[in-house]
Amino acid sequence: MSVLVAAEFSAHEWAQWWPLLVRALPDEHLVRNRQAVQAGEIDVALVANPAPGSLQGLENLRLIQSLWAGVDRLLCDPSVPSHVPLARMVDPSMRDDMAQTALWAVLGLHRGYFDYAAQQRQGRWHQLELQRADEITVSILGLGEMGRAAAHSIALLGYSVLGWSLSEQLVSGVRTHHGAAALPSVLAQSRVVINLLPLTPSTRGLFDAHLLGQLPKGASLVNLARGAHVVESDLLESLDDGHLHRAVLDVFDTEPLPPEHPFWSHPRVTVLPHIAAPGDPRSGALIAAANVRALRAGLALKHIVERTRGY
Amino acid sequence: MSVLVAAEFSAHEWAQWWPLLVRALPDEHLVRNRQAVQAGEIDVALVANPAPGSLQGLENLRLIQSLWAGVDRLLCDPSVPSHVPLARMVDPSMRDDMAQTALWAVLGLHRGYFDYAAQQRQGRWHQLELQRADEITVSILGLGEMGRAAAHSIALLGYSVLGWSLSEQLVSGVRTHHGAAALPSVLAQSRVVINLLPLTPSTRGLFDAHLLGQLPKGASLVNLARGAHVVESDLLESLDDGHLHRAVLDVFDTEPLPPEHPFWSHPRVTVLPHIAAPGDPRSGALIAAANVRALRAGLALKHIVERTRGY
Repeated sequence: MSVLVAAEFSAHEWAQWWPLLVRALPDEHLVRNRQAVQAGEIDVALVANPAPGSLQGLENLRLIQSLWAGVDRLLCDPSVPSHVPLARMVDPSMRDDMAQTALWAVLGLHRGYFDYAAQQRQGRWHQLELQRADEITVSILGLGEMGRAAAHSIALLGYSVLGWSLSEQLVSGVRTHHGAAALPSVLAQSRVVINLLPLTPSTRGLFDAHLLGQLPKGASLVNLARGAHVVESDLLESLDDGHLHRAVLDVFDTEPLPPEHPFWSHPRVTVLPHIAAPGDPRSGALIAAANVRALRAGLALKHIVERTRGY
Repeated sequence: MSVLVAAEFSAHEWAQWWPLLVRALPDEHLVRNRQAVQAGEIDVALVANPAPGSLQGLENLRLIQSLWAGVDRLLCDPSVPSHVPLARMVDPSMRDDMAQTALWAVLGLHRGYFDYAAQQRQGRWHQLELQRADEITVSILGLGEMGRAAAHSIALLGYSVLGWSLSEQLVSGVRTHHGAAALPSVLAQSRVVINLLPLTPSTRGLFDAHLLGQLPKGASLVNLARGAHVVESDLLESLDDGHLHRAVLDVFDTEPLPPEHPFWSHPRVTVLPHIAAPGDPRSGALIAAANVRALRAGLALKHIVERTRGY
């Protein structure tokens, strides 16, 4: 049997991932072009955001292992067979990456470093008012691997951290709430909201004018999950009418962010090119390989997505 | 007796500090204008970077308590009587502020967030190479209250942290070295160097072409201590010849940084307006008051500067 690597990788990403996957799976026959073998020969697909239809007709598929964290695109692809176990990538290095980005955004918003960068461009020397970290309430929406790691790091620095998730979660050092009914009160207390929710039908477009209006004036949004969580026009309006202070965005409706998009030049929008948590192919290849070996040995597969839940 | 508050505060800073000091010292007679009382009536001076000569002729002075961390300006003022105990401000909130700034700078340098900000201004979507935190060696020069707090926070995030100080120090989670002979090897390993040394005759101008040349190509400098630690023209040269990657500077030879200074518009210099660790007047007033009460009660004074050492 063969392992198909189905990824929309750049040439550079192929150069990183391919030798690591080959080395991590010495007993497997890896192919990156599905025409190289008969479709029936492929029983494992290692995927990274593959184009819709990439897995169509692979009737003997027994495992789809994502090399990246998000699986929303795969779940929307009707050609991905729903009976085949689909595993997310859960990589400690990705979790660390995300915690770093979340913490950096919080520090920047709390300490005014984004504003100081704007002042530098104006040649302006002006010291902003400062509050202590414990006076700043940071909410993390979504308490999966990424959300918990971010919440923990931010709480360690002394911020007042609230966590919110769809189902109940406990995180050390963080006051957690769950369910739709609890969200308005979390939002109303938040100086900074960090989105780390999975993208599902119930969270798509969650950050609309209604939700943003529930934040106190002067709050900021950090979106590190998916562009489709945010109604971009509503976000722009909330920034422009002075309600929201700033948005730090790593993800967008369309990526790469189109050249004409108003986010690029908005003075209170920070655009990152989807780099919050790239993870490390060195550990990612080993983690993917471990699930393939578990499959071969008949052992339990790890990090299988619950499709009805969507993550 | 009276307590003189001798500070070059802005109107805003006076509005913050004065009522807090009055409330923290209900049994003291506080004056902010030394003409308000006879010079001999003043036995305590609470100071924040006072102009040279501000304390001249106060023959009954028994304590000079700084409201800020650095005392280098006071030590250079020949009119400050050298027999009078001089106390630095050691405020946990200042230590937290400094650790936040140091961590933010390290995250920005490691993750390329400074470069992404430049890319945003160019409308450029480009993902930079990423290393893990443990692959980045960060050196902290100066392991006083501030340096230890910064080192600890940065080590907690998984960075490889080296500490260097003039005299031997131990910091949990940090490999420490001390003395001039140990410095070249620390520098040679450093991707990021954070300066938190006290300004003394032996550290003035320490960051010159010779020292910067001992850093590996592509290293970055974060100066959070005093502008006079750095030979600004040597730093500019090291940035411009491509040896140093970036400088994050909170302090300068002349502050505010003059409008014509090349740092303002340098694409690889981040200018902060001396805000790394402002501290919190709410805790600062209580800490200063505690030393005044210790003096009145004949108890030991805290955080007295060793003048021969310079900090």
